[in-house]
Amino acid sequence: MTSRVLVKNLAALPDGPVSVSGWVETVRDQKKVQFVILRDESGAVQLVNPALRELGEESAEGDAARLETTEAISALAHGSFITVTGELKHDERVKLGGIEIKIAGLDVVAAANPETPIAADSSPDKRMDWRFLDLRQPKQSLVFRIQTTFLHALRSYWVDNDFIEIQTPKLMASASESRAELFEVDYFEGKAYLAQSPQFFKQMAQPAGFGKVFEVGPAFRADPSFTSRHATEFTSVDTEISWVDSHEDVMKLHEELLVAGFTAVKEKHGDEIREHFGVEVTVPTTPFPRIPLAEAKEIVASRGYVVPRADADMDPEGERQIAAYVAEEFGHEFVFLTDYASSIRPFYHKRHDADAGLTNSYDLLFNGVEISTGAQREHRVEVLEEQAREKGMDPEELGFYLDFFRYGVPPHGGFGMGLARVLMLLLHESSIREVTYLFRGPTRLLP
Amino acid sequence: MTSRVLVKNLAALPDGPVSVSGWVETVRDQKKVQFVILRDESGAVQLVNPALRELGEESAEGDAARLETTEAISALAHGSFITVTGELKHDERVKLGGIEIKIAGLDVVAAANPETPIAADSSPDKRMDWRFLDLRQPKQSLVFRIQTTFLHALRSYWVDNDFIEIQTPKLMASASESRAELFEVDYFEGKAYLAQSPQFFKQMAQPAGFGKVFEVGPAFRADPSFTSRHATEFTSVDTEISWVDSHEDVMKLHEELLVAGFTAVKEKHGDEIREHFGVEVTVPTTPFPRIPLAEAKEIVASRGYVVPRADADMDPEGERQIAAYVAEEFGHEFVFLTDYASSIRPFYHKRHDADAGLTNSYDLLFNGVEISTGAQREHRVEVLEEQAREKGMDPEELGFYLDFFRYGVPPHGGFGMGLARVLMLLLHESSIREVTYLFRGPTRLLP
Repeated sequence: MTSRVLVKNLAALPDGPVSVSGWVETVRDQKKVQFVILRDESGAVQLVNPALRELGEESAEGDAARLETTEAISALAHGSFITVTGELKHDERVKLGGIEIKIAGLDVVAAANPETPIAADSSPDKRMDWRFLDLRQPKQSLVFRIQTTFLHALRSYWVDNDFIEIQTPKLMASASESRAELFEVDYFEGKAYLAQSPQFFKQMAQPAGFGKVFEVGPAFRADPSFTSRHATEFTSVDTEISWVDSHEDVMKLHEELLVAGFTAVKEKHGDEIREHFGVEVTVPTTPFPRIPLAEAKEIVASRGYVVPRADADMDPEGERQIAAYVAEEFGHEFVFLTDYASSIRPFYHKRHDADAGLTNSYDLLFNGVEISTGAQREHRVEVLEEQAREKGMDPEELGFYLDFFRYGVPPHGGFGMGLARVLMLLLHESSIREVTYLFRGPTRLLP
Repeated sequence: MTSRVLVKNLAALPDGPVSVSGWVETVRDQKKVQFVILRDESGAVQLVNPALRELGEESAEGDAARLETTEAISALAHGSFITVTGELKHDERVKLGGIEIKIAGLDVVAAANPETPIAADSSPDKRMDWRFLDLRQPKQSLVFRIQTTFLHALRSYWVDNDFIEIQTPKLMASASESRAELFEVDYFEGKAYLAQSPQFFKQMAQPAGFGKVFEVGPAFRADPSFTSRHATEFTSVDTEISWVDSHEDVMKLHEELLVAGFTAVKEKHGDEIREHFGVEVTVPTTPFPRIPLAEAKEIVASRGYVVPRADADMDPEGERQIAAYVAEEFGHEFVFLTDYASSIRPFYHKRHDADAGLTNSYDLLFNGVEISTGAQREHRVEVLEEQAREKGMDPEELGFYLDFFRYGVPPHGGFGMGLARVLMLLLHESSIREVTYLFRGPTRLLP
């Protein structure tokens, strides 16, 4: 019995007996010879079988088995999972990796339905219906290998720098951001709400004296929009640190994390990303450009685009424009837009000491799309209470949160970053749906 | 301006000016001299101030400032966050680390309310009300440092062994385990449910060809019980691998992961765990003992305890008894109970080929408490459908899941493990509440 070899490890083996397991990507069933492309999680390999179509009158020993194998291959459905034993042979004429396996035995472990419900040109919605088949494409699984590498690099940075990982509850007694986008849960005799972000609870780690914390976990927004960058459930990358002087300290941390993540991704997957996505991964240089929001709007206006909003905020086109400017001027894919107006920021963002109309906050844009919001937090409870009231929040409902600030708390700040947006923009994909394992939207709960 | 030094780094510095930031743990306000114990996320240090209680007629330069500092220290509330500059002095007579800092300047960054709502003898419930203060105890924050180390070791194992990290959705269109313990969510015009485990979606990675996957994320159970080991929301450690021959392959992986985790925890925190919890961390030897469940029940019966259940299952006392037996016989803290009866296992557990009454499954006990369930999964769709029907599941509702098995799928298996249970049992704590950042139970949604 030969034990299974991953396809990626075949090339390093000498010619001889091997066993491989995976699914059938294609079958080329020619009269004299049959070819099967078998793919596993590590790559694809060509299997070959000299066909024996019928038993002659003077059959050699083993001919019955050869006939059986030939017929099994002819009957193979695309997608079936099989285990094949055979002779590995290095042959540089074979386009696929210079190796092939001559089939000795073939076991159909799980036969696929012969009709595959999706094809290369299926609509995005149809592909989502059959996401598990869609994910069999090497390009698709690569997304999640990249994500694995990216997250592990971030976590390694955090662990190496003495951050504590926290798992904050997703069931809450109240809203963490806005009541408008809140999912309500039947909770025994009462109601609970799904956390829109870990904001309040990662801040709790500050009066708890944890110093520096991180969390990668789900967040939920009952957002009815159908854009390419919104989901009702998404993975949020969060961190929060004590003793910041301003949002500048948060931006520095943010840069270091992204450099760590992109360096690891480029090293491990740079070639595959170029091959499958046609994208050259750039490890960003630090510091990233920083532009106060008001200035960014002027720059955008001077380029001929006046942001059509009544409030002080940017809009997606404005973000694209300022990113184009930054790319031209600084050759950079990232830009921090800083010092957002208090009127468009949550109550817990700290405001400038000299100008309460501005906050110690930023948005980070990557290739023209917002991927993150960061800020120094207001830690003075009386100011926090006042700002909450001003924003129309219910101080009663926020009581548990405001208590965090009554027994001593260090100045602190942090950011939350949408994981799928980073992946989408890194790979120049058109939607977060393409880089989410299973997308959730207003009309999408299945599979 | 001196920049902040972490307390743990002070001992390595020469005598001289330093700045530290943290919270006030104790104040000893003697007539002639004042002592403050300041704690930060890395440790505690003694601050000292020769008191100046009033200005004499011939005051020296700086006396006014000294008087001010003296009065500020007298007024310091326990828990306030302060920044202190002063002269570091090594002095082996100082019990706390052989160093102290003579205060030159003191800045109360965030004053605490003078009355602390919890004390050392507060009830567990009261401590949970004020969890952020409870977590300031070094023993409490150590729990989360240990958890960080444990999870990073697991994730490093996974990443080093080419597993893919997935984030499965927590919003589902149907139950993943049992309708009885399901949280219902208002989802736009319809309903959604919170995932009780990532079971279905981690299995989806198998027909997707991902090979080996892992996830650490929240799971939700509308379980009304109030035991020391149940929560309505908990962190589930999940993994799933292709091409297993039986649950034995899953158990081997499980052992390797726990050895990796415990090795890292012992190396990094062994001394602190001994100090704060009085526990000697043991890295388990492999293989862990394996006992078929039926045999385990006989062993327990022979020790005089007959499990009072009508079904084939164990109960908590039986688990303690078999663990005691394993400790005596094998000197091991872990035991796999294997081959559970089909009648007490979910429909997706694979049954023995020769005896459909038994499953290719196990529970893992650690110090007498179940921390995990693992199994080989049934991957033959017609068998799976039959088993689902037999368990009274609605095949209609399971349609999306059953589809995963219609287009080819490798044999596979995996486990789910409760993170808080591992921590509780590792540290010999009495309840998962003590090792959960913010516990969620039927009557606990705040803070």
